[in-house]
Amino acid sequence: MDADAKKIALRMIPYGIYVLTTDDGKGNLSAATVNWVTQASFAPPLVAVGVKADSHGRHALAVGSHFGLCMLGKDQKDVAFTFFKPTVVEGMKLSGQPYHKGTTGVPILDASIAAVEFRVSAIVEGGDHHVVIGEAVDAHVMKAPQGRPDAAILEMKDLGDSVFYGG
Amino acid sequence: MDADAKKIALRMIPYGIYVLTTDDGKGNLSAATVNWVTQASFAPPLVAVGVKADSHGRHALAVGSHFGLCMLGKDQKDVAFTFFKPTVVEGMKLSGQPYHKGTTGVPILDASIAAVEFRVSAIVEGGDHHVVIGEAVDAHVMKAPQGRPDAAILEMKDLGDSVFYGG
Repeated sequence: MDADAKKIALRMIPYGIYVLTTDDGKGNLSAATVNWVTQASFAPPLVAVGVKADSHGRHALAVGSHFGLCMLGKDQKDVAFTFFKPTVVEGMKLSGQPYHKGTTGVPILDASIAAVEFRVSAIVEGGDHHVVIGEAVDAHVMKAPQGRPDAAILEMKDLGDSVFYGG
Repeated sequence: MDADAKKIALRMIPYGIYVLTTDDGKGNLSAATVNWVTQASFAPPLVAVGVKADSHGRHALAVGSHFGLCMLGKDQKDVAFTFFKPTVVEGMKLSGQPYHKGTTGVPILDASIAAVEFRVSAIVEGGDHHVVIGEAVDAHVMKAPQGRPDAAILEMKDLGDSVFYGG
């Protein structure tokens, strides 16, 4: 396989930017910027997320546990970069960002434009990231999009001309 | 769960447009437009694809078999719509689109801007679509992008103001 061709072709996949949040039930919260997300079924409503194998988020997850995906808006590049770094939990703030608890207990960033809470239905440990499959169990729209919802979300290409996570 | 909130939030996920191709080894080829694709690992290079449970493509796939993802360019809306319909195989054309065989034997549309061939490493049958996890085993760039690769691919939002597959 030509490594350059693989890199270029896989980088054609467009991505939104999300903050994946967890609460392991022992007082440990995590929030991390992720982009490898796709829907994977309508009924039940499933998503598949690539989650770094050695991350706090992954360690908090098991089949039956919950996670949140907080969608970031076009003007929230700073929030995306904040959660590339380890989360600092302070009161009701995660790395300075106010949050509240969703119905499943996962943190939801107040500033996100929408958020969906998932129950983990399967995890496939195939590589340096694991495929976490989650069923949507609650959803919240904090800032209704004016046009297409997929035009409102912050995208990988908005983070910088040479910023990629993929390939 | 509020059904409208779920729909709006899940439709924030941006998607590229791909033609998923298979050859079941018994002379049956399939090609279908898909959008539920994400990378899922760097090493090995994995993707996760949501494939309709009752589709020809899904029936041709099992762990160890192969599939292709042909990336469509911004000007290939017609090709996307062509493969929303059942594939007509005629000589070395799929629904009128010339193809060649990749190194794994899967059809690759000559007109696509890039294509990646995958070996299926796992399938999770969780809903009306199954999560097919594939490891990239070969990759081809037919039309090198001038700028960012993710700016060259046809996107769901390019297909029409009210065209969505998700939510």
